[in-house]
Amino acid sequence: MSESSATGIRPLSREQIDAYHQKGFLLLPPAFLPPASLATVLDAVPEILAQEGEHRILERDETTVRSVYGPHRSHPSVDSFSRLPALLGAVTQLLGDRVYIHQSKVNVKAAFAGDRWEWHQDYVNWLDLDGIRSPNLVNVAVFLDEVTEFNGPLTFIPRSHHNGLLAGTDSTTMPVGYEGDARWVATLTATEKFQIDRAELRRLAGENGMVAPKGPAGSILLFHSNVLHASMPNLSPFPRKLLIIAYNTVSNPPTNTANPRPEFLASHETSPLEPAR
Amino acid sequence: MSESSATGIRPLSREQIDAYHQKGFLLLPPAFLPPASLATVLDAVPEILAQEGEHRILERDETTVRSVYGPHRSHPSVDSFSRLPALLGAVTQLLGDRVYIHQSKVNVKAAFAGDRWEWHQDYVNWLDLDGIRSPNLVNVAVFLDEVTEFNGPLTFIPRSHHNGLLAGTDSTTMPVGYEGDARWVATLTATEKFQIDRAELRRLAGENGMVAPKGPAGSILLFHSNVLHASMPNLSPFPRKLLIIAYNTVSNPPTNTANPRPEFLASHETSPLEPAR
Repeated sequence: MSESSATGIRPLSREQIDAYHQKGFLLLPPAFLPPASLATVLDAVPEILAQEGEHRILERDETTVRSVYGPHRSHPSVDSFSRLPALLGAVTQLLGDRVYIHQSKVNVKAAFAGDRWEWHQDYVNWLDLDGIRSPNLVNVAVFLDEVTEFNGPLTFIPRSHHNGLLAGTDSTTMPVGYEGDARWVATLTATEKFQIDRAELRRLAGENGMVAPKGPAGSILLFHSNVLHASMPNLSPFPRKLLIIAYNTVSNPPTNTANPRPEFLASHETSPLEPAR
Repeated sequence: MSESSATGIRPLSREQIDAYHQKGFLLLPPAFLPPASLATVLDAVPEILAQEGEHRILERDETTVRSVYGPHRSHPSVDSFSRLPALLGAVTQLLGDRVYIHQSKVNVKAAFAGDRWEWHQDYVNWLDLDGIRSPNLVNVAVFLDEVTEFNGPLTFIPRSHHNGLLAGTDSTTMPVGYEGDARWVATLTATEKFQIDRAELRRLAGENGMVAPKGPAGSILLFHSNVLHASMPNLSPFPRKLLIIAYNTVSNPPTNTANPRPEFLASHETSPLEPAR
């Protein structure tokens, strides 16, 4: 099939597509999406954060909301947003096939209290825990607040996705503060379950530098499932909420059907998305 | 006395002095100091960090060195550095009187492991614990590594020193991980003993923004004892060591002589410094 048959539009230029593949990420301005689309998601955020359940992960302080998983399943406005033709068109251009949503989440990174995300590649969990066989997934991070150098921006090592999964150490113990939780929580906290080798991180950051894309609310940050990223805690008085949607191609479904993670972490509904009108 | 009588030189311009007083901090390039002066301090750093004792504070991980206090007392090269005519001249211009060193330290902010410093004003401890009656002290932070947005730069709220000490809450319990330590350790960890009111921080950062000065090793960052500052943990693979020297005027000595902090935290030798040759 052609890259654009899902939506009929090809919103990314050849240069943008090349930049994504070379560096592993691409930042788009708020104008990439229709003017009112961000507001519909922002309106839903208080309700998304307030809904208690296993899909909502707290910080180690046991008070602050860290992440809420699966909002595209529970909130129609997030569902519609995730199927905006511009987004689906861009994602289809990058992945080269029709797509579905493997995982979505709001990462809150609360003012003063939002904790770090250590260096990691998203794909290690999607391979190991979900049995997704190719790293050909793209994360779409929508800035729900302005992202600055002070509120814990996503930080990348450019080009680090070119060598596949990196060496590291997989911990079998639960992170401090989450000892009584379900096993799958181990991959969602400030302490990464799979710790990338530090000498390798130093080498890659030394060769390629680090980049923390910043921008106003409504900016869109696309990044590859294997690009190394981390983020600092948020010591600032201002929040840094992101809506992150991980798109996967329909030809690359999860194969761990015997022992799957909860649906809000790893979707098994892999039918191609239809563009929202 | 005239501003410059200690050294006979006035290295700061009128504009630089005004900027310091307006914003509460001033960044100077490495060229501010003689070419070889940084190297003499860098040579001493491994020995400074290796010397065990009460003056050396570890991170909560009980392994990584967080700070070493009093290096100007224990290492002749740091002593000489702290009395460089350019530094003494600048500090004398800013404080308007002859000076001595109230406190010095190397803050390590180790790669991957260096923890945060929460929002604080240095002066609260110098008043409460040491009985220093005026906030007319200046910190001189010497970058021993390049400081970037990624390795936990000192971050200021400009102009926040203009209203004196801010409201907050003084904790009487020891920080987590330091329960068995001496009382004075409570002011030296990632959890500030005196917690500034968060609404006040939000207001001040909203009005004045935040600034995190960056630069190559050898840069000099001067800042007021009452300017609000914080720093993120260092998630990067590169260290961010600072040598910080707090200069006080000889007319503003500590008055807590009944129950003083250890000499490495609060000097009681208040004779005016003589410039190094």
